[in-house]
Amino acid sequence: MVITRTHEISTKGQGDAHDITAAVAQAVAASGLRAGIATVFVVGSTAAVTTIEFEPGAVRDLNDVFGSLAPRDGEYLHHLRWGDDNGSSHVRAAMLGPSITVPFNDGKLVLGTWQQIAFFEFDTRPRRREVVVQVLGE
Amino acid sequence: MVITRTHEISTKGQGDAHDITAAVAQAVAASGLRAGIATVFVVGSTAAVTTIEFEPGAVRDLNDVFGSLAPRDGEYLHHLRWGDDNGSSHVRAAMLGPSITVPFNDGKLVLGTWQQIAFFEFDTRPRRREVVVQVLGE
Amino acid sequence: MVITRTHEISTKGQGDAHDITAAVAQAVAASGLRAGIATVFVVGSTAAVTTIEFEPGAVRDLNDVFGSLAPRDGEYLHHLRWGDDNGSSHVRAAMLGPSITVPFNDGKLVLGTWQQIAFFEFDTRPRRREVVVQVLGE
Repeated sequence: MVITRTHEISTKGQGDAHDITAAVAQAVAASGLRAGIATVFVVGSTAAVTTIEFEPGAVRDLNDVFGSLAPRDGEYLHHLRWGDDNGSSHVRAAMLGPSITVPFNDGKLVLGTWQQIAFFEFDTRPRRREVVVQVLGE
Repeated sequence: MVITRTHEISTKGQGDAHDITAAVAQAVAASGLRAGIATVFVVGSTAAVTTIEFEPGAVRDLNDVFGSLAPRDGEYLHHLRWGDDNGSSHVRAAMLGPSITVPFNDGKLVLGTWQQIAFFEFDTRPRRREVVVQVLGE
Repeated sequence: MVITRTHEISTKGQGDAHDITAAVAQAVAASGLRAGIATVFVVGSTAAVTTIEFEPGAVRDLNDVFGSLAPRDGEYLHHLRWGDDNGSSHVRAAMLGPSITVPFNDGKLVLGTWQQIAFFEFDTRPRRREVVVQVLGE
């Protein structure tokens, strides 16, 4: 059994993070499945997904480390291609990654108490985003 | 067919790594399934999973790079939230990621000869950890 | 239904990236499945997979950031183990990660228009590589 949903998010630009745990849990609940995996996949190459304790400090700390690693105002060859200014976005998104896979059992995601599923916008401008949540199991 | 197992690990604090390949392989063998995926998911937001050649040098090298990128004694906004000292742990865990998905075929994980599945503790204190290994296939 | 394929790649050494989107899409098409996941897994501990806008600038930008983070000519404990020179390769590969999971629906991968599946060679010498593409669904 496979159920595919698309979750839409409006973002405010680089560093804007969204807690999408409830949307993923709801997709699992709506599927009626007991055990399996929820795959969370970000459509696009300048945003990413991970888990984190979703409180403003930790979210900002992660953004700050990415800011040092791939500064927004750094020099990127990607900028020469299209006149874009989002080379830092591509690097951060590729490093954090587009997908995570979260098992569920007895209809519940196996997350820790302080562990949330977080979508990170890394593009330099607000975007309308699609996150695919696909539930697969029995 | 879905089989869910929880693997428990006692850790010694930041940088303590554990080779969990045998536990994952055993879950696959016990399932009796021939082909499918083993999802390895770390419960909690201050530890992570990846693959690496599991020898002390490479493990330490990865920890050292994380030590430069997100120093344990750096300043983190997360510390202001709870009086915690593990901002570096949250950043490292979110970057490395909570899940990997390893295919198996003919009942065997498709790992390379020098490629092991490694759990990394990033928290600043010893923890009792749960890693969920879920086997899904036919 | 599970279909497992091995995709072979000849690489030119550290930083050599390959767009493997077509190979993954073809595995999905050949499976005849309608909905499910394609797991892409790199066999070996000195290469990795992610998604990126696959144009030379962005690929080079990501390699350059890894070059700063884990320099090829840095000092690595792994080198002391075997006399290897690829400590930087192990660190980069473990950080980027060995697997991504891409959902498909109506027989099509849910990738963005500018989002490709990219294999990154991080080893310091040319390698013959295997990437496992496993399609699982209904």
